[in-house]
Amino acid sequence: MISDREQAAFEAGIKLGALYHQWVGTPLSRVSAASVEAAIEKAVILQPCVEKVSVRLNRNLMTPNRFGYSEVSGLMLDVEIVTRVGFAYCRAQLVASDGYPLMRIVECNEISPVSDH
Amino acid sequence: MISDREQAAFEAGIKLGALYHQWVGTPLSRVSAASVEAAIEKAVILQPCVEKVSVRLNRNLMTPNRFGYSEVSGLMLDVEIVTRVGFAYCRAQLVASDGYPLMRIVECNEISPVSDH
Amino acid sequence: MISDREQAAFEAGIKLGALYHQWVGTPLSRVSAASVEAAIEKAVILQPCVEKVSVRLNRNLMTPNRFGYSEVSGLMLDVEIVTRVGFAYCRAQLVASDGYPLMRIVECNEISPVSDH
Amino acid sequence: MISDREQAAFEAGIKLGALYHQWVGTPLSRVSAASVEAAIEKAVILQPCVEKVSVRLNRNLMTPNRFGYSEVSGLMLDVEIVTRVGFAYCRAQLVASDGYPLMRIVECNEISPVSDH
Repeated sequence: MISDREQAAFEAGIKLGALYHQWVGTPLSRVSAASVEAAIEKAVILQPCVEKVSVRLNRNLMTPNRFGYSEVSGLMLDVEIVTRVGFAYCRAQLVASDGYPLMRIVECNEISPVSDH
Repeated sequence: MISDREQAAFEAGIKLGALYHQWVGTPLSRVSAASVEAAIEKAVILQPCVEKVSVRLNRNLMTPNRFGYSEVSGLMLDVEIVTRVGFAYCRAQLVASDGYPLMRIVECNEISPVSDH
Repeated sequence: MISDREQAAFEAGIKLGALYHQWVGTPLSRVSAASVEAAIEKAVILQPCVEKVSVRLNRNLMTPNRFGYSEVSGLMLDVEIVTRVGFAYCRAQLVASDGYPLMRIVECNEISPVSDH
Repeated sequence: MISDREQAAFEAGIKLGALYHQWVGTPLSRVSAASVEAAIEKAVILQPCVEKVSVRLNRNLMTPNRFGYSEVSGLMLDVEIVTRVGFAYCRAQLVASDGYPLMRIVECNEISPVSDH
């Protein structure tokens, strides 16, 4: 038996793992960063079980190279995602933590569908 | 509170999502397929919480293009992974299902660490 | 000796090869396609030697999967890029050709920098 | 008119740009590095116009993260490729240069096919 909370956690992991490897390496600058954030959000929200996603790229890490641009890196990504399976939710993050792009569950919850007066 | 089973499911999702987006598009042929399978396995097994991984690329889908090679596609991938967090395990798969590369949990289990007599 | 035309052709190849492998696999729908086109264009134009780039994703190939979305594929991409090195230009394309995503040079030109009177 | 040397330079650029974005982010360690080098070489050599390719990953940059592994980065890659179109060759490299992963043509040559007397 697999619970809805476990399924929601699995789906959150899929989306964060996919996002990381899809977008790392994309050329960007402080000027184009907002459009990259929007494009990532629009791509993630299309996928099954995704309720919410917010993507923020850390401008402080966008040091221009000799040609004046930078690239999306794992440490630059600050992502929060909420997935839902049945009545269970999982909220998870991708955040820089001690120099490592860490993916972690923030909370898993199951909402009782029946109000029991 | 997040259970070890939920954490293990999350980790399995991360690895499958990452693998998919990292490797799709890699040029390959039936001759080089075994080396690509080995390279994917060696990359996945390095990551935290991964206990086992097996990767099989479907040779039947490796139709050569006009230049004699093919590319890794989502449908070509047949992957099974086992992740562990604490005493909980999650076994998950990436398999072609009705023309869609489906990721799914096969089982989650928690092994009691204490024999109680 | 390497000519500016050869350098411009090399730079055009780099950008098309990079773009293909960076973006293939990105989830998209007909609704989000325009934002993906814009994001690709903004990422490519940042890179050295790029004078112009236009990206068009073929909506006809965006057949929704069972979850209602699609993914960027090589055949979906219709790209034209112009690179410049010194006074030499290279115009190149990535276009679907007989079921293969073909990259090709359309023209290379060198403009005489000196008006001669 | 596009010369064979220009075509060969274009093809070299395609392969280097593609390789970079395909492989950056792949988990690796000093132990698995040789298998990743082999997998990249086998993938690149399959593609049209490629005569030779050698890939070397800089072990000095493989600093293990807190989980004991590293990731392929642009600066880690030391690649040399030879492409051929007709009787023209292009030898190009991807090498770290002042902290930037630089792609450059080393030489373009056209070999006279007929030495007939």
